[in-house]
Amino acid sequence: MIIRGNILNVFTDEIYPGEIKIEQGIIQSIKEVDQYFTDIIVPGFIDAHAHIESSMLTPSRYAEIALKHGTTGVVCDPHEIANVLGMEGVEYMINDAKYAPLKFFFTAPSCVPATQFETNGASLDSFDVESLLKRDDFVALSEVMDYIGVINDDEELIKKIDVAKKYNKPIDGHAPLLTGEELQKYVMHGISTEHECSSKAEALEKKRLGMKIMIREGSESHMLEEMINTPSDFIVTDDLKSDDLIQGHLNIRLRKAVDLGMDPFDAIKMVTINPAEHYNLNCGSISPGKSADLVFIDNLDDFKVNRVIVNGNTIFKKQKILYRANPLPLETTLHVDFKKTEDFDVKAQNPNHKSAVVNVINVVPNTIITKKGNAKLTVDKGTIIPSVFEDVLKISVIERYGGNTISNAFISGFGIKNGAIASSVTHDSHNIIVVGTNSEYMAEATNKIIKNKGGLVAISNKEELELALPIAGLMSDKPVNEVAKTSTQLNEIVERMGCPLESPFSTLSFMALPVVPELKITDKGLFDVNENKFIDLITHEE
Amino acid sequence: MIIRGNILNVFTDEIYPGEIKIEQGIIQSIKEVDQYFTDIIVPGFIDAHAHIESSMLTPSRYAEIALKHGTTGVVCDPHEIANVLGMEGVEYMINDAKYAPLKFFFTAPSCVPATQFETNGASLDSFDVESLLKRDDFVALSEVMDYIGVINDDEELIKKIDVAKKYNKPIDGHAPLLTGEELQKYVMHGISTEHECSSKAEALEKKRLGMKIMIREGSESHMLEEMINTPSDFIVTDDLKSDDLIQGHLNIRLRKAVDLGMDPFDAIKMVTINPAEHYNLNCGSISPGKSADLVFIDNLDDFKVNRVIVNGNTIFKKQKILYRANPLPLETTLHVDFKKTEDFDVKAQNPNHKSAVVNVINVVPNTIITKKGNAKLTVDKGTIIPSVFEDVLKISVIERYGGNTISNAFISGFGIKNGAIASSVTHDSHNIIVVGTNSEYMAEATNKIIKNKGGLVAISNKEELELALPIAGLMSDKPVNEVAKTSTQLNEIVERMGCPLESPFSTLSFMALPVVPELKITDKGLFDVNENKFIDLITHEE
Repeated sequence: MIIRGNILNVFTDEIYPGEIKIEQGIIQSIKEVDQYFTDIIVPGFIDAHAHIESSMLTPSRYAEIALKHGTTGVVCDPHEIANVLGMEGVEYMINDAKYAPLKFFFTAPSCVPATQFETNGASLDSFDVESLLKRDDFVALSEVMDYIGVINDDEELIKKIDVAKKYNKPIDGHAPLLTGEELQKYVMHGISTEHECSSKAEALEKKRLGMKIMIREGSESHMLEEMINTPSDFIVTDDLKSDDLIQGHLNIRLRKAVDLGMDPFDAIKMVTINPAEHYNLNCGSISPGKSADLVFIDNLDDFKVNRVIVNGNTIFKKQKILYRANPLPLETTLHVDFKKTEDFDVKAQNPNHKSAVVNVINVVPNTIITKKGNAKLTVDKGTIIPSVFEDVLKISVIERYGGNTISNAFISGFGIKNGAIASSVTHDSHNIIVVGTNSEYMAEATNKIIKNKGGLVAISNKEELELALPIAGLMSDKPVNEVAKTSTQLNEIVERMGCPLESPFSTLSFMALPVVPELKITDKGLFDVNENKFIDLITHEE
Repeated sequence: MIIRGNILNVFTDEIYPGEIKIEQGIIQSIKEVDQYFTDIIVPGFIDAHAHIESSMLTPSRYAEIALKHGTTGVVCDPHEIANVLGMEGVEYMINDAKYAPLKFFFTAPSCVPATQFETNGASLDSFDVESLLKRDDFVALSEVMDYIGVINDDEELIKKIDVAKKYNKPIDGHAPLLTGEELQKYVMHGISTEHECSSKAEALEKKRLGMKIMIREGSESHMLEEMINTPSDFIVTDDLKSDDLIQGHLNIRLRKAVDLGMDPFDAIKMVTINPAEHYNLNCGSISPGKSADLVFIDNLDDFKVNRVIVNGNTIFKKQKILYRANPLPLETTLHVDFKKTEDFDVKAQNPNHKSAVVNVINVVPNTIITKKGNAKLTVDKGTIIPSVFEDVLKISVIERYGGNTISNAFISGFGIKNGAIASSVTHDSHNIIVVGTNSEYMAEATNKIIKNKGGLVAISNKEELELALPIAGLMSDKPVNEVAKTSTQLNEIVERMGCPLESPFSTLSFMALPVVPELKITDKGLFDVNENKFIDLITHEE
């Protein structure tokens, strides 16, 4: 098989007309020819760091859309599903990815569970990590989020790091704002990448220590502009929602980088040869012996993708994707009984009291942090009543792993006037979380999620909509268009319900993450992150 | 332990005053300080490709001198000793290197024996290669010189390549002038470096295919000037003689590169982080977790080395090396009987003939190639007599591996008037080779080598000198100064004997290499490289 076009060479920063000879999916040779072509052939794009689960699509569904945009490889960390299902979840990702032409290079989750302050579905120990890292399709140890553990030489964590070293595989980092001596200790353990930099200065400090810097340009995090002139190595998405994925993948990030002034060859290397060399992938360049993963683009300004070839097979051409996913099913992972209205009631300590002062989670809009506040609420027949007027609503976390417990608290910032929203995507343990104006709506929303084996729900007095996420409560088996459309409609409904937040379900998903300040709720209760302990919901009654 | 100075950062191309905290030989952290220093601290230099045997020094002796010049790591291929002693030879190198502070990163010889047209001491099959490559101190498969074998999918050779892939270790290349489709096939097998480029164009063709380019600046090959503006990755020595090693190692190559206009940061990276990343070495940068291998230099013009630290220990300071080698002994490897004068006589086919026309090896001065010529020589009492007047001398190769055979022929170009020179360094099989004006001198020179367990000898009617190389017939156990001094004196003697060649022993060492054109002599006879067959010595008698 021969492919012709203007070939971009990532080793010499050249473009020349040539032909590529391919046999059995492998590039055999490249020959310069004296011919005129319009398209530029570049190596297939590789996303060096992504969590597929964030798209709410299965790997095979993710492939359907990412391939259209020229992405032929993703280094992906199945951290979310591992928290739900452990090794079985990781196996699901591998198996669902297996028949997709997009190459999923997995990393072995290093921090499951993420904390001990919430109940999750599974844990991965160093033996599990070893069983993954010895496989050829596992290319690295996933981001070591527990940097405190590294700094304190946590024995089990260091074992996982040592396993990666044993198999000669890179160790990914995640240490936002870590600096100085503590950062140096983190790096000393061999952790070699960082995608959490939020400033040039942070990136430069980490680069000086030899870390490879990933510029994150995802759905919520947009770092390209800040980082454009800072030494860096990769452009990654990390977390990309389905509606953003429809707009583009690395292709539009390349366009943005070049728009911002980055040299187009440098930009392309950040999503081709750089990740290929770092993770030891047999792709990322148009050279003999590499996989024939090729993308035809119109030019180095627009990065419009005209054709995509993987392993020598054309997968996308003339605006048509030639691959259709057939996602694997998965048994329900929600081991939880249907809830009753009264499960969501918050009882006063003394039923005769008339009011109660409670701790309140104050949302800081469009961030994942919260502030600790309080409110004085009415007690009616022994039940503490939320105040819609003052935007003090109820929030509950329902343990979904068989414990059947529920914890209730109060939250301010969601602004819902009459209804509830709920989700089974709740970092990092993915219990069910629900915010609502009363217990009836909250029970109804929760039970819809249980019925759907997971998902998102919005219910108001006027309308209701649900997105089923039956794959581990994290992913749909539907194609991207359906998922994106329902997601968008859900956001519109929540906005009409009075919520001022930009991404209400995203904000909701972080309200149970007890490693980000200040006050959070897990299935085990109200957690003060700064104090690193659970606290009482009610501070005073009268 | 704290080290202070102006620290050169290979990740950001910066130099800043700082202090390096070291524990147990590992860099823990780096801190910028507000202090004035004169010296620049750079990572210890790494030679990405060298054959220690070429220095005629054992690894420990090589370390004594290379460390003074700031070289703290050498990626080295024990190809020569493997041809003599096989795995036992490789083990010798490992063991002799073991206590030297210089880090020897070994590569597993891929092409032993080099050809079937001469007798060597051992062969390394794919099982031997695997037993080496599974070790941590073996970092790559050695240069795959048999590029014809690669192109023709030689089964055993491909097995060796597959072993390297299995252990995730790079495969070094050696394919001088290979081009076009054949080169692409070579690269397709995963061979990733080239140190044989002799022109910009050759380097660019190979670079385009993704090969990493080693600029070779050794004793015989000087490519820095030619390659200065060509994309390349490493500066290497390959083969360095002891007298050159005394002058400098990578330090003087850096100086030359910068003199020629190379950016000093780029030059330094070519001997630090680039080899470290390619061969996965835990050094090459001043960053947390890496070996504290540090070199203090005066500036980025002279690269004068003031202090050398390896694993946190000062090895060289104030012009004083703080390490003394204690080379391991080795049993004789010369399994050959003392020779008699008549063994070197070339008999006419018919003792009554008066003259014979013979094929003659014509040396092309200061290259390793020869031309095929002929000469008419006198036959005296049945023996063909060399013609000193016409510079047609005798050359013999004595099999040293127990076969006790000898092959005799004629050579022109050595210009010796009265005497003989002999050597047990004879690429690639290292039999004994001798050139002389008569059989008496040749027998005497050969027997001196046998007595010395190997070495170099020059004998004339006026003087004689020998350099014993008892370690596999390739290396001395003496320090560099002694070896270099005797080598220089030997060359001076040979010059006084009438020889016009710049490096007579080097030229001599290639006269038995039957893979380089045009006419060579091995222990099995006279070999026509272009015809790929042995030919008769005598073409005609009368």
